[in-house]
Amino acid sequence: MAALLEIQPIAGSIPRPAIDDMAAQQIQPCAAIRQVAPEGHRRHTECARSIDQPERAVAAGQHAQPLQPHGTTIDGIASGIPRLNGRVDVDQLHVTIIPNVNNLTRTAVMSDAVSGAALALMIDHTILKPDATRAQVRTFCDEARQHGFRSVCVNSVHVPFVADQLRGSDVRVCSVVGFPLGAMPAAVKAAETRAAIEAGAQEIDMVIQIGALKEGRLDDVRDDIAAVREACGGAVLKVIIETCLLNDQEKRDACRLSVEAGADFVKTSTGFSTGGATTEDVALMRGVVGPDLGVKASGGVRTIEAAHAMIAAGANRIGTSSGIALVTQTAPVAGSY
Amino acid sequence: MAALLEIQPIAGSIPRPAIDDMAAQQIQPCAAIRQVAPEGHRRHTECARSIDQPERAVAAGQHAQPLQPHGTTIDGIASGIPRLNGRVDVDQLHVTIIPNVNNLTRTAVMSDAVSGAALALMIDHTILKPDATRAQVRTFCDEARQHGFRSVCVNSVHVPFVADQLRGSDVRVCSVVGFPLGAMPAAVKAAETRAAIEAGAQEIDMVIQIGALKEGRLDDVRDDIAAVREACGGAVLKVIIETCLLNDQEKRDACRLSVEAGADFVKTSTGFSTGGATTEDVALMRGVVGPDLGVKASGGVRTIEAAHAMIAAGANRIGTSSGIALVTQTAPVAGSY
Repeated sequence: MAALLEIQPIAGSIPRPAIDDMAAQQIQPCAAIRQVAPEGHRRHTECARSIDQPERAVAAGQHAQPLQPHGTTIDGIASGIPRLNGRVDVDQLHVTIIPNVNNLTRTAVMSDAVSGAALALMIDHTILKPDATRAQVRTFCDEARQHGFRSVCVNSVHVPFVADQLRGSDVRVCSVVGFPLGAMPAAVKAAETRAAIEAGAQEIDMVIQIGALKEGRLDDVRDDIAAVREACGGAVLKVIIETCLLNDQEKRDACRLSVEAGADFVKTSTGFSTGGATTEDVALMRGVVGPDLGVKASGGVRTIEAAHAMIAAGANRIGTSSGIALVTQTAPVAGSY
Repeated sequence: MAALLEIQPIAGSIPRPAIDDMAAQQIQPCAAIRQVAPEGHRRHTECARSIDQPERAVAAGQHAQPLQPHGTTIDGIASGIPRLNGRVDVDQLHVTIIPNVNNLTRTAVMSDAVSGAALALMIDHTILKPDATRAQVRTFCDEARQHGFRSVCVNSVHVPFVADQLRGSDVRVCSVVGFPLGAMPAAVKAAETRAAIEAGAQEIDMVIQIGALKEGRLDDVRDDIAAVREACGGAVLKVIIETCLLNDQEKRDACRLSVEAGADFVKTSTGFSTGGATTEDVALMRGVVGPDLGVKASGGVRTIEAAHAMIAAGANRIGTSSGIALVTQTAPVAGSY
């Protein structure tokens, strides 16, 4: 039977290229569903509020839609979000299932392997420890191919090796740059970016100049991002703002500057500082960058529950070294549905 | 009155350029004293053993000398270590005083401001947090000038600012490179090095490719260091081996490769990993690189006792953000002497 479905603000936030990607790869675009739920249930905003996270409720509420009857197609609820190619019946979708809409935050589970594949496509399979060996990096590449992760994310010294390992697969090569402190000149970050791209990187995750942001030298922050943007060419650029070191205004500034400098994603964390992704920060970032940019939640996302919470808050990419756990930790769908 | 003096293995380990530096700057070469102590006291090796650290005792013992009578000149005890210009009477020196040679590890204190200055010259005053602002970096520069630290050590983005702040002083500009993971290509580290040196850096603290070391690609580790060495020109090159991630054989390999690649110093730690400097590691590193290279202890050296322990184990440079505490935490010299 068709599942009763719920995915929150990612609906309005999937960038056009990602949707095209899904179509090209015939991935079921579950992440593009804003909201599907049984007839007569509460509005999205109410669901969001029920989880007792005001910032998240605000972010979700921005795109709130009335609940739709069971069987509603995506077109039916897609107003204001990028349109998918064709119509897809909800009956054919496998997406995040909320077994009990009254207990939204506690019971989210993945329905089955197809949902796992859709989630996998949101995961940057990440190994950034400084003592990583090629054997360990190779394992990550093998796992990424096996599970269909979006990318393998490594330090730039590993890019040639990873590009070689992933050749012929759909898994992308993602390199961090200026990582994890971000405290090198823009020209050096650009040089690292060029080296990574020449070696096969298709995505670049750079760290901003945090100190410059702190002291209000916003032009310097923007110029730093722009230098990497230019070096990126057509590669995807994600900008790590290191939320744990910033106050909310600084987070908003960093997101705005990232947009202005041409980033494709904003990203919460390096995983090497005092904290990782929080749903509050993801919601804040999504609120600033709007629906057309990506938001990557990274740092400490180690469980399916955490991943779902990040997605619900607005993330459409997850950076984690626990990707395997996320896509295999599949709770059975209760027969009660 | 003349102090009763004790400095341990640094005597044999001060590199020639550092001694020339001291002479040029008319700094009293206290650190070049191996051992001066009251007539009839115990041998150096016994002192080292008394602190119950076998590795340190071994390292100290390598250069053990019989104790010399009070008033012995440096020439008198300098066999096997770089000779200083001229003769210096111990009466004119101000150095680390061990009030009670029987309680070596507990009671080491600095004798006075001159001793503080000698210690200060061994300190890289270090601010590497990613959110450091120019105001904070400026404070470090001011403190370094005031206390006569050897250098201010910063992330490379701050080098132009620090060079400007330190202009006209004897305090050097030290930049980290490839920091703190070391996991970028050699060419990128070299580019960062060149940028730092063009901006005024006189010392470069680079991080090795730890993963390559782990998997035994020793040529790659050496080539990586050599690339930075070449980019350094005449600047001092310190090689951070990140001891906390290495086993003892890997530490020895890293030190040996650093020597082969032309490093001026080996350095224990970034301060951003799982641990900092230990006396055991400093002694091990000193044992490998011998008396002609520098050994920098960094990461967690926050007290005068810790600094003295590192120096006693073989360090001749200390990287710390607690330099002020080290040089001002001056316990009064007891009148019992």
